[in-house]
Amino acid sequence: MLGAIEAGGTKFVCAVGDEKGNLLERIHIPTTIPSETMVKVLAFFKKHDLDAIGVGSFGPIDVNRESSTYGSITSTPKTAWRNFQFVQALKEAFPIPIGFHTDVNAAALAEATFGAAKGLDSCLYITIGTGIGAGAIVQGKLLHGWSHPEMGHILVKRHPQDEYQGGCPYHSDCLEGLAAGLAIEGRWNNKGINLAGRLEVWDLEGYYLAQALMQYILILSPKRIILGGGVMNQKQIFPSIYKYLQEFMSDYVSLPELTEYIVSPGLGNDAGIMGALLLAHHAILES
Amino acid sequence: MLGAIEAGGTKFVCAVGDEKGNLLERIHIPTTIPSETMVKVLAFFKKHDLDAIGVGSFGPIDVNRESSTYGSITSTPKTAWRNFQFVQALKEAFPIPIGFHTDVNAAALAEATFGAAKGLDSCLYITIGTGIGAGAIVQGKLLHGWSHPEMGHILVKRHPQDEYQGGCPYHSDCLEGLAAGLAIEGRWNNKGINLAGRLEVWDLEGYYLAQALMQYILILSPKRIILGGGVMNQKQIFPSIYKYLQEFMSDYVSLPELTEYIVSPGLGNDAGIMGALLLAHHAILES
Repeated sequence: MLGAIEAGGTKFVCAVGDEKGNLLERIHIPTTIPSETMVKVLAFFKKHDLDAIGVGSFGPIDVNRESSTYGSITSTPKTAWRNFQFVQALKEAFPIPIGFHTDVNAAALAEATFGAAKGLDSCLYITIGTGIGAGAIVQGKLLHGWSHPEMGHILVKRHPQDEYQGGCPYHSDCLEGLAAGLAIEGRWNNKGINLAGRLEVWDLEGYYLAQALMQYILILSPKRIILGGGVMNQKQIFPSIYKYLQEFMSDYVSLPELTEYIVSPGLGNDAGIMGALLLAHHAILES
Repeated sequence: MLGAIEAGGTKFVCAVGDEKGNLLERIHIPTTIPSETMVKVLAFFKKHDLDAIGVGSFGPIDVNRESSTYGSITSTPKTAWRNFQFVQALKEAFPIPIGFHTDVNAAALAEATFGAAKGLDSCLYITIGTGIGAGAIVQGKLLHGWSHPEMGHILVKRHPQDEYQGGCPYHSDCLEGLAAGLAIEGRWNNKGINLAGRLEVWDLEGYYLAQALMQYILILSPKRIILGGGVMNQKQIFPSIYKYLQEFMSDYVSLPELTEYIVSPGLGNDAGIMGALLLAHHAILES
């Protein structure tokens, strides 16, 4: 039996299941402070006979196995969780293999294994919600190097008519600062879900996301790109992305048909927790 | 014995050597038209008893083994070479394993094996010359997916005081359009080598390259970044890159000490041909 944690800023999803993605039981636990949340997490897993646990966590996190702080959450704005030794806390209760990656890397792994990129050894999963994050599979493995990617904070060119200053506390008008859910709300003084009929909102959203996709494609050359997260429930963004991406790329590289290349998730909201199950399975294989 | 070709737009470097990077003999052949150039290439290799040949080629090229045009040069402005079946031409003369990648991927491989990223399983090699290109090693392997990266053409924000329109025939003011050797010459009406004392030239160059490095770091998180090519012989660009990169990143991710993280090549001008030798060796291992 495998344990899985999708650790989000609002809630933890905990589940048990198998490496085929079957979820046998799952619960939600509010993300408050580590001492409260983790007691409930450990109590849930204590009921089961686990062979490994996989964690897909909000970040930034330390995924460098050679680092002295491997397995911890690092510079999160959620101060109670800053420097929380996530892997160590689990290891103390369960002396079994623990897999640990970002939430978006877990989702990318699940989509490549069971979802919209099934059968491909390369994909990019991007979530556009309150913030923007991405994970990637490169040649069959989760992409990481010095640290994990932080693709939501790349630079984009401002639209000449966009007067919104940008909402990122670090970079002001980076991609997340101009195109995440909080930016949409900040610019239009309304939540995206209430702006569905305003074409200009989604045209501008496509303008920024297409720029980001151009960077991701020219740097990573993924075999498929999956766009998830709450903002992407506005399906009218897709045609805008296709239009601007073709305009920006100017036929420089040949790409697959865009409607098959840049797609919605195959696993809906389950990608993160299914990916955490896979991280548990990988932890056994690597142990 | 291994054969190696560094196929550039001006000249082909051909060499024989071993997988330890020892170059036993090397010649230069002008890049004219395939029928002329390749006759000389094949004649050079015929003198040797080869086990494999590795090619690092100018591009774009088709490196997708499942493609019907694998091993060919695709949409190059050098029309005589467009759709040239490079691997097939070699295979007909030498029925041995042939390795085939971009020139910059070959250089990245050599720098990771013998040069400035020796011992690391991750690095990024960028050449800033007439044009801009980059290759990457990710978790010990050459990065490729749908195709090879084309990192020189990513978008950057224009400097507000820069009035040069940009020199890229596809994207006008992409990175290559604003920061390659041709762009420096186009903007300042003089070759970079004659502008060594003009501080504003290299400050602006650092401004654009730092933006590109920020994108590469946030997307790939390489363990080391190597900046080669003729433009980078102007060492005064490095401090400008460090300054702007720190400003743009705004401490969002922790990075190694920049002077050790972003460095000059360890192999000088030999990275490409030594990488081609390694591609030959890899072709044997994969055959």
